Amino acid sequence: MASIAAIKQLIDKLGAEKVVAEKEDLLTLGYDSTPGLLHLPEVAVYPTTVADVQTVLGIARDEGMPVVPRGSGTGLSGGSVPHQGGVVLCLNRMNRILEIDEENLTATCEPGVITLDLFEAVADKGLFYPPDPGSQKISTLAGNVMENAGGLRGLKYGVTRDYVMALEAVLIDGSVVQTGGKSVKDVAGYAFKDLLCGSEGTLGIITGITLKLIPPPQTKTTMLAYFDAMPRAGEAVAKIIADKIIPSTLEIMDNATINCVEDYAGIGLPRQMAALLLIEVDGHPAVVAEEAAAVEKVLRSVGAAEFKVARDADEAASLAAARRTALSALARVSPTTLLEDATVPRSRLADTFAEIERLGEKFRLKVGTFGHAGDGNIHPTVLCDERDADEMERAHAFYHELYEKVLAWGGTVSGEHGIGIAKKDYLAKQIGPAGVAVMRRIKQSFDPQGLLNPGKIIAD
Amino acid sequence: MASIAAIKQLIDKLGAEKVVAEKEDLLTLGYDSTPGLLHLPEVAVYPTTVADVQTVLGIARDEGMPVVPRGSGTGLSGGSVPHQGGVVLCLNRMNRILEIDEENLTATCEPGVITLDLFEAVADKGLFYPPDPGSQKISTLAGNVMENAGGLRGLKYGVTRDYVMALEAVLIDGSVVQTGGKSVKDVAGYAFKDLLCGSEGTLGIITGITLKLIPPPQTKTTMLAYFDAMPRAGEAVAKIIADKIIPSTLEIMDNATINCVEDYAGIGLPRQMAALLLIEVDGHPAVVAEEAAAVEKVLRSVGAAEFKVARDADEAASLAAARRTALSALARVSPTTLLEDATVPRSRLADTFAEIERLGEKFRLKVGTFGHAGDGNIHPTVLCDERDADEMERAHAFYHELYEKVLAWGGTVSGEHGIGIAKKDYLAKQIGPAGVAVMRRIKQSFDPQGLLNPGKIIAD
Repeated sequence: MASIAAIKQLIDKLGAEKVVAEKEDLLTLGYDSTPGLLHLPEVAVYPTTVADVQTVLGIARDEGMPVVPRGSGTGLSGGSVPHQGGVVLCLNRMNRILEIDEENLTATCEPGVITLDLFEAVADKGLFYPPDPGSQKISTLAGNVMENAGGLRGLKYGVTRDYVMALEAVLIDGSVVQTGGKSVKDVAGYAFKDLLCGSEGTLGIITGITLKLIPPPQTKTTMLAYFDAMPRAGEAVAKIIADKIIPSTLEIMDNATINCVEDYAGIGLPRQMAALLLIEVDGHPAVVAEEAAAVEKVLRSVGAAEFKVARDADEAASLAAARRTALSALARVSPTTLLEDATVPRSRLADTFAEIERLGEKFRLKVGTFGHAGDGNIHPTVLCDERDADEMERAHAFYHELYEKVLAWGGTVSGEHGIGIAKKDYLAKQIGPAGVAVMRRIKQSFDPQGLLNPGKIIAD
Repeated sequence: MASIAAIKQLIDKLGAEKVVAEKEDLLTLGYDSTPGLLHLPEVAVYPTTVADVQTVLGIARDEGMPVVPRGSGTGLSGGSVPHQGGVVLCLNRMNRILEIDEENLTATCEPGVITLDLFEAVADKGLFYPPDPGSQKISTLAGNVMENAGGLRGLKYGVTRDYVMALEAVLIDGSVVQTGGKSVKDVAGYAFKDLLCGSEGTLGIITGITLKLIPPPQTKTTMLAYFDAMPRAGEAVAKIIADKIIPSTLEIMDNATINCVEDYAGIGLPRQMAALLLIEVDGHPAVVAEEAAAVEKVLRSVGAAEFKVARDADEAASLAAARRTALSALARVSPTTLLEDATVPRSRLADTFAEIERLGEKFRLKVGTFGHAGDGNIHPTVLCDERDADEMERAHAFYHELYEKVLAWGGTVSGEHGIGIAKKDYLAKQIGPAGVAVMRRIKQSFDPQGLLNPGKIIAD
């Protein structure tokens, strides 16, 4: 925890305007977007320079105070929840886009830049930053890097890690490390940059990010298809990929999600349908035309019940709207929304949907499932009430059984949300004692006192 | 070093047919493809199972014996040279392609599979494994992973790391770790898989590799252009990228290399030309046609002296032949070929060529330069004689000054060859004391006794 002396030192060295210590002001920093986790920090700081970050870490070392870095708190595994107290290090004020290098196709940013702000800034210059996590309107780039965030374009364009060219980080010993650079190829020693990606603030504090940009696709076609049986949707996904088409978006929603979205947004979705697929193909116009035709052929061959092609950008946005609002729509149905992040090899997608249905019935739960079908990364979401102890027990049993299957099928407990606090035990099952020992070794070597975002990733 | 007792144990536990201890048989295992490095091991082993690898590491632990993993010895930075003696662990007999999974687009292989064998096996199934290091005909996959090998297709398709989905490794404590899987998205804890890529055998011994495959490009167009001045070639590269064209290949050769290739192969290259660019665009036929036309327009606008488009696959192969033979052609000119691997942000390419020319004159050296212009990854190659101490001193001074510039321009000391023994000191300059401390921390945490490929990557 943060002692009175530590808080006084923070104020003395950073200035009172960068330090928050009143309990009512700390309230919003005690949770992220993961249900059921709330732990107030004793103090929060808003550094504006790398030197400020070094100062905070210096005080943390001297006082044995946990340091929990935070962007916008949109994480879904508790990665920024200060459950061991200490100081929350809010990087939001370090939010400048420092450079967009059009020759080398890179953008260099401070950690607190909002994802969508970068997307728009580079779009103004005719460039494209593909990662688009669901929270892109408020999430920060360092948050994206720390959780290795995905998004709807992951299937074709990859995830945040695929765009990180260089990082600057402050380590717990106060040293500032630069790793990577603007060269598109770099094998200079251990891949520390890649190790930092997805490390959830447990190895160092990110103070600078250089991202790769690409030319934007020239055009895209958006399609929506409905299915009266989930296996048909699964078959469509498998056949699209088997046809060697890599859509930029290949998203799925089940019947429960369709109905929640319709209750919420009233956009005329057919409530009786078992599943919806949102498909976008993008690139050169000739390629897009061919791929869209091939997708249509697949959809007909598997017997899609209904099929729409957007005629223009507005209609494309309206077709995509259902999928984009899925989580918000599910979240309003019940007091508690348990959103999971099971990811399987693509060939196991249909099995996974069947298993989710079976387990939902077995444990008498309301489950809505949506996600990135093309990636095998889906979000089975239990709609429940955390005040109902019995229901919560059933919900956890549901996930427990589901993850056993996911792991037996060679899947992973997190495709894009990270481990944080919420999935430490599942991770331990996935990687086994030897894998946990590796994680512990890495953590120990960078943070021997265990001060940087303690208690995350590695099961106790 | 390996004691007599250790060698006896290896024979007892693995069987004599897997152990080589006669000096004459060890001779070829004392060097890789890096000039000037030769250090015989005391013993070599050829494991065929994971258990064999565990046995070797167990004996190494007990006896304090260095273990140097090796594939085909095609490395260019001394990564597999046993300069502290010990046992060389040859993974060549573990060379089965275990599975090509057409549903999930993956291939799972033992470490000693030859790169080109995998390429051909997946091509037979209509799939594509893009990384194509120069040594692909004999290099092994584990070697590619350990050095994070690049190749001619890196600009568009990335390097080996971009295709590694899962690894199995034996750590020095004998534990077998699985990291990654067939899921296309995975953020399950620290990115140990990514840390292993490029770790040059210093953190663990790779015993299994799962690689990502992609659909092959439908067609390609190969072009060759000559320039009477190097800056024009540099300008062409910059303009192609600025036009948002990402060729699958964008390779360069300078005048010295052109002449060496012509001496060697006699294929009618114009000896007076300052530079040659080999350009390939691939993908959908409509895209290829447009991009080829756009490339031609750029080449005309910068004043290329000559320009050829291959009409068919045979002519494409003959145009590419000059570039593919560059290293062999240079290597036969003089007794010693010092091949370097300087990589700069693309915008600094022209500056780098000018600097190489200036330094070649300053130090009175014969230098041929070729490489991956589109990546900013070039191979300035000094043709010299290691018996001439003065010339060697000048050669080292040449690289010393060159790397100072490369680093000042934000480049890296290795784009694709790794650090090994040869570039430890350059790496230390690049990443500074804080960066070296990070590398040392990582090494220490995985190999506290310093037995796995000791003395590589980290400067003493």
